[in-house]
Amino acid sequence: MNSLAEARQDTATARLEAVRGELRHRRLDGFLVPRSDEHNGEYIAPYAERLSWLTGFDGSAGMAIVLQKKAAIFVDGRYTLQAADQADMSCYEIRHVTEEPADDWLRGNLSEGMRLGFDPRLHTDRSLDRIGKACRNVKAVLETTDPNPIDSVWGDQPEPPSGLLVVHDVAFAGEESAEKRARLAADLGADGMSAAVLTAPDSIAWLLNVRGSDVPNMPISLSYALLRADATVDLFIDPRKVDDTVRAHLGGGLTLRTVDELPAALGDLRGRKVLADPDSASAWVFRLLKDAGADVVRDLDPCQLPKARKNTVELDGARAAHRRDGASLTRFLRWFARHAPEGGIDELTAASRLRSFREGNEHFRGLSFETISGAGPNGAVVHYRVTEKTNRKIEPGLLYLVDSGAQYLDGTTDVTRTVAVGQPTAEMRDRFTRVLKGHIAVAQACFPEGTTGSQIDILARQPLWRMGLDYDHGTGHGVGSYLGVHEGPQRISKVASAVALEPGMIVSNEPGYYKPGEYGIRVENLAAVIERGRPAGGEKTMLGFETLTRAPIDRSLVDVSLLDADELGWLNSYHRTVIEDLDGLVDSETADWLRRAASPLGH
Amino acid sequence: MNSLAEARQDTATARLEAVRGELRHRRLDGFLVPRSDEHNGEYIAPYAERLSWLTGFDGSAGMAIVLQKKAAIFVDGRYTLQAADQADMSCYEIRHVTEEPADDWLRGNLSEGMRLGFDPRLHTDRSLDRIGKACRNVKAVLETTDPNPIDSVWGDQPEPPSGLLVVHDVAFAGEESAEKRARLAADLGADGMSAAVLTAPDSIAWLLNVRGSDVPNMPISLSYALLRADATVDLFIDPRKVDDTVRAHLGGGLTLRTVDELPAALGDLRGRKVLADPDSASAWVFRLLKDAGADVVRDLDPCQLPKARKNTVELDGARAAHRRDGASLTRFLRWFARHAPEGGIDELTAASRLRSFREGNEHFRGLSFETISGAGPNGAVVHYRVTEKTNRKIEPGLLYLVDSGAQYLDGTTDVTRTVAVGQPTAEMRDRFTRVLKGHIAVAQACFPEGTTGSQIDILARQPLWRMGLDYDHGTGHGVGSYLGVHEGPQRISKVASAVALEPGMIVSNEPGYYKPGEYGIRVENLAAVIERGRPAGGEKTMLGFETLTRAPIDRSLVDVSLLDADELGWLNSYHRTVIEDLDGLVDSETADWLRRAASPLGH
Repeated sequence: MNSLAEARQDTATARLEAVRGELRHRRLDGFLVPRSDEHNGEYIAPYAERLSWLTGFDGSAGMAIVLQKKAAIFVDGRYTLQAADQADMSCYEIRHVTEEPADDWLRGNLSEGMRLGFDPRLHTDRSLDRIGKACRNVKAVLETTDPNPIDSVWGDQPEPPSGLLVVHDVAFAGEESAEKRARLAADLGADGMSAAVLTAPDSIAWLLNVRGSDVPNMPISLSYALLRADATVDLFIDPRKVDDTVRAHLGGGLTLRTVDELPAALGDLRGRKVLADPDSASAWVFRLLKDAGADVVRDLDPCQLPKARKNTVELDGARAAHRRDGASLTRFLRWFARHAPEGGIDELTAASRLRSFREGNEHFRGLSFETISGAGPNGAVVHYRVTEKTNRKIEPGLLYLVDSGAQYLDGTTDVTRTVAVGQPTAEMRDRFTRVLKGHIAVAQACFPEGTTGSQIDILARQPLWRMGLDYDHGTGHGVGSYLGVHEGPQRISKVASAVALEPGMIVSNEPGYYKPGEYGIRVENLAAVIERGRPAGGEKTMLGFETLTRAPIDRSLVDVSLLDADELGWLNSYHRTVIEDLDGLVDSETADWLRRAASPLGH
Repeated sequence: MNSLAEARQDTATARLEAVRGELRHRRLDGFLVPRSDEHNGEYIAPYAERLSWLTGFDGSAGMAIVLQKKAAIFVDGRYTLQAADQADMSCYEIRHVTEEPADDWLRGNLSEGMRLGFDPRLHTDRSLDRIGKACRNVKAVLETTDPNPIDSVWGDQPEPPSGLLVVHDVAFAGEESAEKRARLAADLGADGMSAAVLTAPDSIAWLLNVRGSDVPNMPISLSYALLRADATVDLFIDPRKVDDTVRAHLGGGLTLRTVDELPAALGDLRGRKVLADPDSASAWVFRLLKDAGADVVRDLDPCQLPKARKNTVELDGARAAHRRDGASLTRFLRWFARHAPEGGIDELTAASRLRSFREGNEHFRGLSFETISGAGPNGAVVHYRVTEKTNRKIEPGLLYLVDSGAQYLDGTTDVTRTVAVGQPTAEMRDRFTRVLKGHIAVAQACFPEGTTGSQIDILARQPLWRMGLDYDHGTGHGVGSYLGVHEGPQRISKVASAVALEPGMIVSNEPGYYKPGEYGIRVENLAAVIERGRPAGGEKTMLGFETLTRAPIDRSLVDVSLLDADELGWLNSYHRTVIEDLDGLVDSETADWLRRAASPLGH
């Protein structure tokens, strides 16, 4: 064992023992350490990285359970190897969360009268459901503990972030916050509700037309809000985040309060019908409402659907942002095409170069997620994140998969391109073309109102299924407008959903194929749901997709013999649009390269 | 007003007043009269036709609510006209059940302290959910009443049926009842359950390998059963239905009891974990379990999935039944092709002729549903049922839609063909071909384990959606093995579902298109889910469909220019199979006709 590993083990042991000591002090036999923060967010601030601090595992999902004599980390399939690599295996068992779930482990390791603690701010009721059942089965007690025991022993825990809120100009938002509040408040009133508790920071950012800087990749500010049926809002937030400009913007109908005041505010709702979203609001919020004697309605966060349905200003913004973003990606692809075959590029330098192309763009505010830059076998790791350790040289014969995106004031982007370095094999071209066929089937879909992404999903998979192939992820996720690159409630997925695709919603279209140990393929564009009107001779107005992303698709990976005339027509037409829309946004050398790279293919 | 209508009005008024008198006698202000029977069945016995007796409306779904001063009938879109036609409008309002639901009507017509009665045997808890809320809103009381007030005033109410149970031979069932009981009992035990209450007669028929004759179209016997984790069964049934042969077949592990003994039997389950299905078991059953102090688990009837997954004997039986049934339908189609253009056939004579072709078949036991025989505009009425009044002459220029099926000991059939009389219009051929393309897309689907019918559905609709057209019904339903022509839990539908399609399941594949006032089109075959194996070069074993139905598709309605090579290949190959499989089952004139009617089409 080298000294770095030894040091890591010492740290892990020391931290785990410190937590165990704290638990004994509180007469607890165990404690749950989820990766979540107080807002059930995908991106969390450093102070909330409790799971990573304790265990070393820094994946985007997972939970540790610490008992006095044992501890385990529960992760999904994409993270079992990473967790085993990052965590100290002498301290933790690593378990696959669906195959060896936490409740089974608890049934085997808890006994009557034992007390298992949890921080109710970090769990939804649903996430506790099976754990609670396991505890009842063995007559153990699942109980809240406050403050969080990790916080009590984490000596140099970072402070919660306190960056300033900024106004999100109506020139980008397209609707004044006052109008949004009035609209949603009227709906609450019509449903007999007095208020809605908002716990998702992106909902609050959308409703109030503000943005923040508390977490990576997503311009949100950690806060809670209470929207009342009279359209007034209480915003519970660290007061240091609000300057006079934002205060003036927020206006008279909004009261600023600290997060500490939330329990008292919810306490005032006795007997009132109050909405909260069980998918995002924590067990703590529901407990406060219950203790208050409120008549709690568990339903979708009322901002979710209005936020998902982009208005025309937001859609125009998305189009503009995608043109600028596409110009950067196209410049990168040209650079890559010139230099990759010579060798000398690796995954890290490629990602860094791509970032630099984007940084000069108007309205650029950062990346919307950490770039996935995977060559060869690394491209087959769906949630790959390049590190110094995994960094791979990009060499002829490999496929290179790059999934990246940015935050602009006028829109959020997310795009994946797969490019061949040198000559691809026939199998690579076959698989790529099948993935492309699925992508085109979604892009060309024509469907009536009420259609869900669960219905659309199969269109992307059919060309692969016919060959006995598939991909183990969804086909598309919702995307925000200068907000989260992953947002709900719509998505395109095998999973049954009752959420219809509505005009204005932005979704990704990203089928893929992954051959473990060899290569990964994904073709991803963002698209907006639009009205296509009534086809000639038809009876119904239909919906469809407008593709937003603008960047060439690698023609060397297309096996034209597998495309029918419609599919080939789509590809050539898409490429024509890319050339036209990027005209003037790229230098003349890139424009020349693009004209060749996106020139028409024929049968 | 003519005298028939007057007599009808007198009867309706008299019956309604009799019920109101009975309600006053019981101090009730109102009563719910659903179309359901005690088993939530699609087909019900004459004694259970309470809604039809009271109101005259004899559709397959609906509910009346009788108050002292008002009464209304709630029906879905397919029945609003029929209800208005059959019921006395001076007694009843007719309301569209989703646009003007019963709970809204009750909110407007009930007031504090009023008592609304219902027969708990005729409702599921779910069906009472919104009505219960409406009553609470206005502080009215929703309460059970026993016996059913309709039964108290219906002087000549038929007796409940008491036909004999018959053994369903293992040569058709493919698995001994004892094996089925042991298999399901083991699953109950593994889930910690003591027993399951079976309330669906087709589940009981499947589990015990018996059939009955209590309702039209479906060989079931009205009964309840309790399956215990030790594999013993209590069967609650009218003892007159069980003769010595059946008693011997049912064996030692089964106790015969009367339905009156069910409450006491459930009363013995105090503290036990007991399964019952909230989609089929009545509020009465759940009330008995609750009163007994059982630990009730609301989940899918444990027979549903095993019954849906046909074994190889059942599948072979289905194939044989479909060949015989297809031979009859083909003889009918030849007869129709010869005589329809001459005039002289009407919808009733056609349906009757089709029945006579089927009646001579081996193992024939009746129709599986009332034949839909619709010419021209009548074909556009999705749930059309021909009567003397609606009967239409079949004339050149019309499309004729015939949806029919039969019960055979070895399988249940359901098939729709649409045929042109004389020369069809270009629009008819266009629409028919699009429907056929959807049908073929489903028939050729290739999908991995875990895929649901909700995912498959869009394949049938895409060719219509592209033209701004659609059809307002599901694409497919499950079908029993000499049991219900509609059975769950799988289906092919827009509606979100978590039930995967599994090998052995039989489903219909029946896209359509309906032009109100002009014509209706539907192409329906039954298909079994089968394993297709692993495609060459593929990674996964895939599933697909084996089409079971054998009857020609009208070539005069196919616009070949709209079919691609794959689709045309499917049609020609299907027709080749029809010719081969019916060889020897039809007379030589029909065989000659079929060879022409099913000859290959080319581009």
